[in-house]
Amino acid sequence: MKRTSFDQMACSLAQTLEAVGDWWAPLIVRDVSIGINRFDDLVRDLGISRNLLTERLGHMIEVGILTKHCYQARPERFEYRLTEAGLDLIPIMYALMDWGDKWRPTEAGPPMMTRHTCGEYVRPQICCDHCGIPLVAQDITAVAGPGGRSGPGTRLMPERLEHTDE
Amino acid sequence: MKRTSFDQMACSLAQTLEAVGDWWAPLIVRDVSIGINRFDDLVRDLGISRNLLTERLGHMIEVGILTKHCYQARPERFEYRLTEAGLDLIPIMYALMDWGDKWRPTEAGPPMMTRHTCGEYVRPQICCDHCGIPLVAQDITAVAGPGGRSGPGTRLMPERLEHTDE
Repeated sequence: MKRTSFDQMACSLAQTLEAVGDWWAPLIVRDVSIGINRFDDLVRDLGISRNLLTERLGHMIEVGILTKHCYQARPERFEYRLTEAGLDLIPIMYALMDWGDKWRPTEAGPPMMTRHTCGEYVRPQICCDHCGIPLVAQDITAVAGPGGRSGPGTRLMPERLEHTDE
Repeated sequence: MKRTSFDQMACSLAQTLEAVGDWWAPLIVRDVSIGINRFDDLVRDLGISRNLLTERLGHMIEVGILTKHCYQARPERFEYRLTEAGLDLIPIMYALMDWGDKWRPTEAGPPMMTRHTCGEYVRPQICCDHCGIPLVAQDITAVAGPGGRSGPGTRLMPERLEHTDE
């Protein structure tokens, strides 16, 4: 059963979800980022079927999140690498992980921690690029942009967003 | 066809994905955050089936992302609201949206923009909570945490992560 495609939605969140493709993809990005980047290792680590992994990797290459790189000629061996777009997902993955640490904690503590080059363990903070203050939902206003339209996935959005005369 | 449950995975990213539940959920969070928070409006905006939306809302209430609030007694009318955990997802949704604006741009421009209380349009930056520097994949090291274990979804992870003696 294929889920509804978000491809035609005039919403960049929907476009990101469509690019990422499915629920396994964030775990694949996680794995590749820590060096679990060969087919058999991904199968073993994730417990995903070989068919599904083949399909998922193909999609992630097609949308430009991963590349397949030949690291050995005889016999030919491949590993997967994150593209620039894929690397751009990493901080978001850590933000999602931090949400899980906070809202679905286990008694044993976090399964994984992240250390920044500054030397400290990081809790990712999502900040305003202008004032640097951590973003909280209450401080953000959604405003209609030039690419918005009423259509599938955003039927009511244009009328609900704030409009500016700029 | 039900997808593989990530419930037993010792990974906070997997736990977050499991809590969010499916691909519609981020769009539901988006909609509720901008005031599209009644059942019929969600059906109309998203183009989702009533059955699937009922199921998704039920899940999101169960995991504590949404609450159902009676805003009118006769006849009874309900709206959905984000909990504190749900509000914590909003900045991450905007970070995902920003990724879409950057990597899947349309000629028309961004469908939606976000304005911060500081007065500026925001591009969310994910920063280190210690030094404040925007996180990039290359500056982050994944380190084994106390709750990690070799198991479904993380079979190889413990041996691939950096270990500390602390």
